[in-house]
Amino acid sequence: MEWYIIGIIAALLTTFGFVPQILKMRRTKSAKDVSITTLFQFCLGVILWTLYGIHLGDFIIIAANAISFLILIVAIAFYYYYNGRQI
Amino acid sequence: MEWYIIGIIAALLTTFGFVPQILKMRRTKSAKDVSITTLFQFCLGVILWTLYGIHLGDFIIIAANAISFLILIVAIAFYYYYNGRQI
Repeated sequence: MEWYIIGIIAALLTTFGFVPQILKMRRTKSAKDVSITTLFQFCLGVILWTLYGIHLGDFIIIAANAISFLILIVAIAFYYYYNGRQI
Repeated sequence: MEWYIIGIIAALLTTFGFVPQILKMRRTKSAKDVSITTLFQFCLGVILWTLYGIHLGDFIIIAANAISFLILIVAIAFYYYYNGRQI
């Protein structure tokens, strides 16, 4: 079993996990049901996961969470943009 | 630096990351803006992360992702329950 392949697929799925949510906000131009607390909680979480990955020396954990962070920033921006349009 | 504390806080934040989303769906009784693709993508992702954690022998990764899986099942159930009510 090539474990790194499992790790890479896991990383790709969760790293890009909020991409469908971003696309849905963009498509429907609505974000009112999305939890901003969830987005901020993940944002802080992936920052700490990145630090923990550096400690473990595990490249997959570092890369996955650093990219997640950037995607979460986009999701948070979309949340405020589309909620702002509705008010 | 006690690295395991960073790991535990990171794990708690992302493990329970969808709890605010579940509470918001329950409070607003609405889930139409939530991306079900995001929920299923995370669900598959955390299953694979759990396997990868077993490979690494890292208890934090195993526990965090196994609990995440259970929370995601609840989130998916709530999504269908509240979207079903709206139809």
